[in-house]
Amino acid sequence: MQAETHGVEGVGSVAILGLGVMGGSLARALSELPVRPVVVGWSPEGDEARSALGSGAIDRAAATPEEAAAAADLVVLAAPLGACVALVPRVLEAMASDAVLTDVASLKVPVRDAVAAAGGVGLWVGSHPMCGSEGSGFAASVPTLYRGARVWLVVPEGSEGAAPAVEALWGAVRAHVEWVDADAHDRLMALASHLPQLAANGLAAVLEDLGVGAAALGPGGRDTTRLAGSAPAMWRDLLAHADPALPDGLRRLSTRAHELADLVESRDLDALVAWMERTRRWRGGA
Amino acid sequence: MQAETHGVEGVGSVAILGLGVMGGSLARALSELPVRPVVVGWSPEGDEARSALGSGAIDRAAATPEEAAAAADLVVLAAPLGACVALVPRVLEAMASDAVLTDVASLKVPVRDAVAAAGGVGLWVGSHPMCGSEGSGFAASVPTLYRGARVWLVVPEGSEGAAPAVEALWGAVRAHVEWVDADAHDRLMALASHLPQLAANGLAAVLEDLGVGAAALGPGGRDTTRLAGSAPAMWRDLLAHADPALPDGLRRLSTRAHELADLVESRDLDALVAWMERTRRWRGGA
Repeated sequence: MQAETHGVEGVGSVAILGLGVMGGSLARALSELPVRPVVVGWSPEGDEARSALGSGAIDRAAATPEEAAAAADLVVLAAPLGACVALVPRVLEAMASDAVLTDVASLKVPVRDAVAAAGGVGLWVGSHPMCGSEGSGFAASVPTLYRGARVWLVVPEGSEGAAPAVEALWGAVRAHVEWVDADAHDRLMALASHLPQLAANGLAAVLEDLGVGAAALGPGGRDTTRLAGSAPAMWRDLLAHADPALPDGLRRLSTRAHELADLVESRDLDALVAWMERTRRWRGGA
Repeated sequence: MQAETHGVEGVGSVAILGLGVMGGSLARALSELPVRPVVVGWSPEGDEARSALGSGAIDRAAATPEEAAAAADLVVLAAPLGACVALVPRVLEAMASDAVLTDVASLKVPVRDAVAAAGGVGLWVGSHPMCGSEGSGFAASVPTLYRGARVWLVVPEGSEGAAPAVEALWGAVRAHVEWVDADAHDRLMALASHLPQLAANGLAAVLEDLGVGAAALGPGGRDTTRLAGSAPAMWRDLLAHADPALPDGLRRLSTRAHELADLVESRDLDALVAWMERTRRWRGGA
């Protein structure tokens, strides 16, 4: 059982930089707490900040990231990976020396490295909430986005003192934190998220090459290629910083596909069934 | 608009051989028609036949496939591919000379060839309904399974006279038939169904090799590997008769995965985004 939360323990004010699905949902969730921290929001798009202010999700809209950061005990970068990395030095410079910085980017090594380069070790704890939405922008934000979600927490050596504020933040919105090393996290994402994405893109390209339209797929083929419909915008950033496990995984997939082709061609049904039994056991662990 | 159907036009009696999800659902759907044909059922498992009889889905249970086939205007083989192929000569031998044979197997070339080998050309029209269930057996059958489903229809030269009875059957249960050549059908299945299946098995094997459990997947990774959880039993048959397009598709997937690995490693983001844009357009046609 999680203890009933009334506010964000030890945190009187939160700055949220970025008011899309991730930042907007965090602001909405905080605004519903019995004991609300003061929430200052900033968005590069003025409309988003006005919507957030109008809905009561934030208490005040800041004109600049620095202005937002200067006013808070806890600063949350809720922007895509590239924007997070660019904001790190500006925000660290503006923050109070006893404030804490976190972010919600999907990869943690690039943010960790940007923090170290800006001399911010000790102030930053990285977060990666395993939740999201098909939609985008503040309009797609919901107060329940983080409820029950797992949040990977990267706490570099020297930043242990910053961890309680970030843990209190996620606890307040009913998410569950799990500590992880930044390198291990990014490797896991390369395999559990980026590899299935590119496998779907690869499979889709083969089907298109062979003249099979997506409309010809059954439910299984549709699921297997669903990610081929992902918007490329967010992927540019992630692939720019992809862990070496991603190309390694793709080369292994290439080898496996070749092995399967040989087994089908030689009608080695026992080996094919054994393969399917094995992955079925693996999948059963989901 | 589909015309209101009252019965199966021109068909007074139907034999259904196999009373699992496919055969059981067909029997249930026929039993709900305002003008019911007489339905004789046979199952290799006596319990299934007793359940079908008890539920009113069939009017009579036959002791043998031959007995069922001899009694009907229209005989439907509702068994897995291998069993269908084995039943073809027995059933053709027992059928009346003016009766019609169809089947619901997922590949059509092996059944077509078995029919030709047994001298049954003229009597057979192949069917492949694009619907199914996660469950199995008569207990998982439902009268609505075929409603709105597409049924691929293979009508060999010389069998045109048999087509109206089979079209009437599928029309009566509110499915939509689409004529297709057997070879083109099996090639399409190899690419649209079998290739995604084995791609999921291949991806799952890579993830297991690299120590990533299925529990670590997000929604995208779960969808992409869902088919890795398929039961191998029905696949043995299908892979034994796989069209050459399947190994060809797997080899192309192997090449594509290798290309993607190179693009990721060289950080060729423009090429990766262009690839994703292309498959997104393809997927949008779904």
